[in-house]
Amino acid sequence: MKQGILYGVGLGPGDQELMTLKAARIVSAAKLIAYPADENGASFARRIAAAQISPGAEEMPVPIPMRVERDPARRAYDKGAEAIAARLEKGEDVVFLCAGDPLFYASFMYLLARLGSRFEVEIVPGVTSLTAVAARLARPLAARSDVLKVLPATLPEARLREELKTAQAAAIIKVGRHFDKVRAILDDLDLTARAAIVTDASLGDERAGPLSEVPAGARPYFSTILIYAGAEQW
Amino acid sequence: MKQGILYGVGLGPGDQELMTLKAARIVSAAKLIAYPADENGASFARRIAAAQISPGAEEMPVPIPMRVERDPARRAYDKGAEAIAARLEKGEDVVFLCAGDPLFYASFMYLLARLGSRFEVEIVPGVTSLTAVAARLARPLAARSDVLKVLPATLPEARLREELKTAQAAAIIKVGRHFDKVRAILDDLDLTARAAIVTDASLGDERAGPLSEVPAGARPYFSTILIYAGAEQW
Repeated sequence: MKQGILYGVGLGPGDQELMTLKAARIVSAAKLIAYPADENGASFARRIAAAQISPGAEEMPVPIPMRVERDPARRAYDKGAEAIAARLEKGEDVVFLCAGDPLFYASFMYLLARLGSRFEVEIVPGVTSLTAVAARLARPLAARSDVLKVLPATLPEARLREELKTAQAAAIIKVGRHFDKVRAILDDLDLTARAAIVTDASLGDERAGPLSEVPAGARPYFSTILIYAGAEQW
Repeated sequence: MKQGILYGVGLGPGDQELMTLKAARIVSAAKLIAYPADENGASFARRIAAAQISPGAEEMPVPIPMRVERDPARRAYDKGAEAIAARLEKGEDVVFLCAGDPLFYASFMYLLARLGSRFEVEIVPGVTSLTAVAARLARPLAARSDVLKVLPATLPEARLREELKTAQAAAIIKVGRHFDKVRAILDDLDLTARAAIVTDASLGDERAGPLSEVPAGARPYFSTILIYAGAEQW
């Protein structure tokens, strides 16, 4: 029997209109829709796609623990992958919803690692939070021969510092509780004046502006910091 | 009189279906559409958006020299910006089409630098070639605490080498005539086995696969190389 196809569909950063035409077409036509869900069943990916999901579609939440210790996360992905595999083996297509892009700091790649060699997979790229944040700020991400670095704020301070010293352009993601550490490094490297921050980029109460205007001690949780220190490019 | 709004609209990497719903809505409704065009009037951005452009829309090609020496490029952007400004001042909205994303190694930011302080600007982010290439290869771009570096192949060899040494994940863009230089560095750093290449990603005859299978001496012009050397992440 012919196996089903696994679709990994990027939905963009949160605004429903930043979904691609291809994502909207595939989600609308899907009979079986899977998505990552937290312990309470809430799913940001499902929320983005909600208006496109057909009323008759079957839904398959895949519980993914948010605080990722290695072993429970592995078990969750193993279990989710097996549930999806069982349906693909019956010849059913499975459309897996992904906030942002499926291969850019996203959980879809853990399913891909488990299922990619056994099943046909089609991936639909999506708008990342990176370009959405730059658009919100109306600031360049990178131009010409700039080196652009994407730096998770979870990295050790020394590593962040070294990477920032040699970047013309950088995006610091996953800022969360690392805000004070990041701010201190940027102050020290004289980069604060070239930095801007977007908080809660994909949720309701987005705020955006120069990093220098964020009061000391503030720790915006869902935030991305963009630094542009390219040469005079224009 | 109320001024018009300048829209910078990302159209994604080339496939018309990878345009966002928002881009399609704004382009379809536009009365005045501008886009970068080469010396012969050809425009990749216009080609992506063609199906969405209303038959009654006025078109304004903005000639941008492809081989960018600083002075002619500056004059071209100055002239294009003034032509757009003249229409915005009359209260007309101008929709500027951008392949990929307007702020990710794209020419829109040179117009933004000239017009952003004088006019209201709204930017619509798009899918970049980066995530499109990863989707085509079905390979992760970056996960968890990986540092992801976007490296233009136009950089000096020593700089490329240093940056690649400390990247868990990298995308080498603008490979073109720098293919041999890049390949030699990756061989030397033992990264070739972890690298894949997509050529002509946005044009008709896309090819994708392991870098090691590209024959010596080949110099694919429109190509992006992805390297994934992250730790065992799953």
